[in-house]
Amino acid sequence: MKKTPLINIALSRVIASLGHGDRLVIGDAGMPVPAGVELIDLALTRGIPAFVEVLQAVLAEMQVESHVVAEEMVQRQLPPWQALEAAGSAIGQRRVVSHEALKELTREARAFVRTGEYTPYANVMLVAGVTF
Amino acid sequence: MKKTPLINIALSRVIASLGHGDRLVIGDAGMPVPAGVELIDLALTRGIPAFVEVLQAVLAEMQVESHVVAEEMVQRQLPPWQALEAAGSAIGQRRVVSHEALKELTREARAFVRTGEYTPYANVMLVAGVTF
Repeated sequence: MKKTPLINIALSRVIASLGHGDRLVIGDAGMPVPAGVELIDLALTRGIPAFVEVLQAVLAEMQVESHVVAEEMVQRQLPPWQALEAAGSAIGQRRVVSHEALKELTREARAFVRTGEYTPYANVMLVAGVTF
Repeated sequence: MKKTPLINIALSRVIASLGHGDRLVIGDAGMPVPAGVELIDLALTRGIPAFVEVLQAVLAEMQVESHVVAEEMVQRQLPPWQALEAAGSAIGQRRVVSHEALKELTREARAFVRTGEYTPYANVMLVAGVTF
């Protein structure tokens, strides 16, 4: 089996496919997924897996240049937000938009990773960077 | 969104499709999945989600008549095994076979649910029952 921290098959494939500027969304369990966007459904039940757990596993493999979050998430300062704060330079520059605007942006994502997070507005769009 | 405990899309669909005697495997992160068997990959990283968490979510929806485990799992008495013991009548009669025999049996499964469990031999084949 794979010996790195991230072992999910679909997520490993998608991250390996990302080029400069491609977008990957990590969303709570209730965020709508736009038609046509690949959905990687990791949600099992309430809180499993948590947004924070999925974020950390993704950041173990994905080079991130910047990210987009909703102002509703920033205002609430809940654990998913705290995890983004803790990620620091690993997620690059932050762009804050409205929740409705973020939903629109997800239409352009390469993939949408659905978590089991039951915290409202726990969504982030990660923009891929390169390692050279 | 769905308001029951089990929210995973693929798992919800597969459980809804099971007829009498159909088999669903819940496996650890390293169990080989036979070619041709549908794989529902919930594994994210070490221990997430745990075998126990996936078992409990599945049992919230699936009517189980009996189950098959490996004798290697019974001998070790680790948390995945304890969860099967605790499930009691919800998983019906138990059949114990060798780990190699269980691997052979998984060829006949309708689907294989891969967990993030890093405990050796944490695998069970659930045989579907009916509710009438």
